[in-house]
Amino acid sequence: MNYKRILRTLGIVLCFESALMVVPLICAIIFKEPEVFDFLKSILVCFSFGGLLLLLKTKNKNIYSKDGFVIVALSWIVMSTFGALPFIISRSIPDFIDAFFETASGFTTTGASILKDVEALPKSMLLWRSFTHWIGGMGVLVFLVALLPLSGGNNLYLMKAESTGPAVSKLVPKVKHTARILYLIYLGMTIIEFILLLFGKMSVFDALNTSFGTAGTGGFGFRNDSFASFSPYIQWVVTIFMILFGVNFNAYYLLLFGGLKKALGIEEVRYYFIIILISTGIISFQLISNSGETFKSITDAAFQVASIITTTGFATTDFNLWPQTSKTILVILMFVGACAGSTGGGMKVSRFIILIKSLIKELNSYIHPKSISKIKMEGKVVEHEVVRATNVYVITFVLLFTASVLAISIEGKDLVTNFTAVAATINNIGPGLEAVGPTQNFGGFTDFSKFILMFDMLAGRLELFPLLILFHPRLWKDMFIRHKRQKK
Amino acid sequence: MNYKRILRTLGIVLCFESALMVVPLICAIIFKEPEVFDFLKSILVCFSFGGLLLLLKTKNKNIYSKDGFVIVALSWIVMSTFGALPFIISRSIPDFIDAFFETASGFTTTGASILKDVEALPKSMLLWRSFTHWIGGMGVLVFLVALLPLSGGNNLYLMKAESTGPAVSKLVPKVKHTARILYLIYLGMTIIEFILLLFGKMSVFDALNTSFGTAGTGGFGFRNDSFASFSPYIQWVVTIFMILFGVNFNAYYLLLFGGLKKALGIEEVRYYFIIILISTGIISFQLISNSGETFKSITDAAFQVASIITTTGFATTDFNLWPQTSKTILVILMFVGACAGSTGGGMKVSRFIILIKSLIKELNSYIHPKSISKIKMEGKVVEHEVVRATNVYVITFVLLFTASVLAISIEGKDLVTNFTAVAATINNIGPGLEAVGPTQNFGGFTDFSKFILMFDMLAGRLELFPLLILFHPRLWKDMFIRHKRQKK
Repeated sequence: MNYKRILRTLGIVLCFESALMVVPLICAIIFKEPEVFDFLKSILVCFSFGGLLLLLKTKNKNIYSKDGFVIVALSWIVMSTFGALPFIISRSIPDFIDAFFETASGFTTTGASILKDVEALPKSMLLWRSFTHWIGGMGVLVFLVALLPLSGGNNLYLMKAESTGPAVSKLVPKVKHTARILYLIYLGMTIIEFILLLFGKMSVFDALNTSFGTAGTGGFGFRNDSFASFSPYIQWVVTIFMILFGVNFNAYYLLLFGGLKKALGIEEVRYYFIIILISTGIISFQLISNSGETFKSITDAAFQVASIITTTGFATTDFNLWPQTSKTILVILMFVGACAGSTGGGMKVSRFIILIKSLIKELNSYIHPKSISKIKMEGKVVEHEVVRATNVYVITFVLLFTASVLAISIEGKDLVTNFTAVAATINNIGPGLEAVGPTQNFGGFTDFSKFILMFDMLAGRLELFPLLILFHPRLWKDMFIRHKRQKK
Repeated sequence: MNYKRILRTLGIVLCFESALMVVPLICAIIFKEPEVFDFLKSILVCFSFGGLLLLLKTKNKNIYSKDGFVIVALSWIVMSTFGALPFIISRSIPDFIDAFFETASGFTTTGASILKDVEALPKSMLLWRSFTHWIGGMGVLVFLVALLPLSGGNNLYLMKAESTGPAVSKLVPKVKHTARILYLIYLGMTIIEFILLLFGKMSVFDALNTSFGTAGTGGFGFRNDSFASFSPYIQWVVTIFMILFGVNFNAYYLLLFGGLKKALGIEEVRYYFIIILISTGIISFQLISNSGETFKSITDAAFQVASIITTTGFATTDFNLWPQTSKTILVILMFVGACAGSTGGGMKVSRFIILIKSLIKELNSYIHPKSISKIKMEGKVVEHEVVRATNVYVITFVLLFTASVLAISIEGKDLVTNFTAVAATINNIGPGLEAVGPTQNFGGFTDFSKFILMFDMLAGRLELFPLLILFHPRLWKDMFIRHKRQKK
């Protein structure tokens, strides 16, 4: 491994984070909040640490696959640790683990909060929380690749480790170019949502928070009732934008450069919309037959389906009180997740398409043992390696999920709480059911469980392997052996 | 497909079933129960239908892979349907769907019951229930292959479709010989347990029921409190035999012909024992710290762990009231299941070993991208096809599981009930948690849900694919097309 290079990159990440904190700093200045100084202190700490790491010089500029994973995993951990500083220094969230949980939840776009009373937080702190969603949504390192001369090495490894879904998108051959286009689309859509929200008479501050949370599919609420008290217009704008940010960004690229037909040619996107329509339909039906209110039921159903499948986690109603089938559909959507190459989490629609096609292929092979069929997507054969990686991903997911549920069961909460708490964090959603339902929070867990859930958030956001590798003994054994060799 | 051959085989299965009913018939005669005539009627019906099908003549004696699957799936459905006759005719279980559920639950060795008051049933009916476990445990067609001249075709396909675990055991080259050895070991162990239970002062009737239920890892109780009222000696005998029947039967073959060292050389068996020990340890610890009773806690923990991992489903206590971690462990064990090539259900320990080894291999490949490592079991490389089949199995399992939970959620029961009801049936265990906990029963479900759960039991017992293929449109399309062609 190229240790100096890894540490240097972490230095860049920290300097970058200190720059990001200028956004809430400005907010604090505008609202004349005393937290101005807390942000200044945090910026100073981040910048000093980052600067120190940047002093490291290295000739070898190559980054290998393994280094890419380690850089990505450590970057996200470092970002979450230092990002917690404003909360700790200002004593908005005095407990370190809680502050770390909240920040990791922010950057990973989970949106699971330990706060009981969100409205008690200063505005600048709320904005910082929402802003972490926006940064985390598209990826921290994708952003750096887009802007900075991180080059020399092979940046594709970084993109690969951080982007979502089974295969990294190769829109254009040059990584830097791809990263820029992705961020431009992301920024443009965020601005459009922001403007539409202002039309709905939302305050600038609220609209900014909402846009950040929607774009990153994060879901931190800035009101105690999340979105219940906003107008149906605003709820629908948020619904539509949540769905749009859950779409594979390749579709927008194709829309810009190839037309609508090509964009809708992406199988994953079609199935994504079909799943949303069917789920909303069934839930609406159940809600209407319960309450009799047609419009409100459809609004709630669409909002909640969009919020869960895109793993945003906003809520307009306490869906923990919904009928069982509706709740079960939401739990299933938690795992399905959004499209690959979107800002959403979960296992991704494309993975499910590959899984279901594998199953159909298997059944066909029993009926016609001699026929050789291959799994196809959009008319093209899916490479064996992608199918294999999908299988391994699902299996790793199931094992990690099970281990996490077992670990947090120690503190004695009920099964549904434990199951949905892990589901809500590993899929980067936010709220689950029962004790972690939309009207509840994650503050009731022990520190041990919080660490497990934080691990799940990070593992979920980084598609499992970068984080798991960090805990692989061989990685550290290699480091130790090479270090000894160099000394000789 | 060879339709006549398939129907003829079903005829043999029905004649065989009518012969099996002689066992409870004798019981009814001994206890002078009026159900003697109900069994006679059932035997007559089975034998007539079977005889009619045997009248079909066919020259083509070949059975192909597809036919093997269809034969196995239909045989189990036919067995469960006709096996329900005694219950319906005697009006012990007057409702047809309930009787079908109970019989399918028996043959698949699930042990999920719809009966509230088991003790109200005539003794001969109780014995028939337990006897179905014994028949289903080792496999109906394995039995026929062992005894009858089903030959001419390739019986390996039948064995393959009916035996449990990722790969069919190839102990000896001849299928018939293998089947006979397996059944002899099975019979021998059942007799030893029966004798040991008699030593514990159990009545002959109780000991017979218990031995059948343990050997098949079925788990129908014949007392309303399952095993709570039996002595610790009996509880321990049952515990040990449940564990023994969950062992890969290859181990017994090796024990007989190769010695203990070879038998313990099977990796799956070693891990199986390790899992049992660790689970029992943790649960005992939790139970002791709750109640302070050391011996009772260990007895209960060992009994329940053995009962769940082997998917038997007997109970000595209401584990629905246990601490959360203990309950979570039990839920996980429900999925792990027993060894491949045993009478137990679940996903099988060997599959989990393969999955965990795939995961470790994947992580290694990230750290050393150029190293090529293969998954090994017992020092031998696991063939790619086995790994692939394991992946496909797990994915199919997850998809079927999810669809089932969604389907039964329609009737509005709580999530834990729905989740564990499906887990308990698809893994052929019996009891779940909450409304299907050990002190409850499956009678409260609607007919629709009962059908879903029956499907899950059969799919679980037959390792998913034989049953799923029956619902594949292509199978019936092929049949239709060929039928038309033959007419021309």
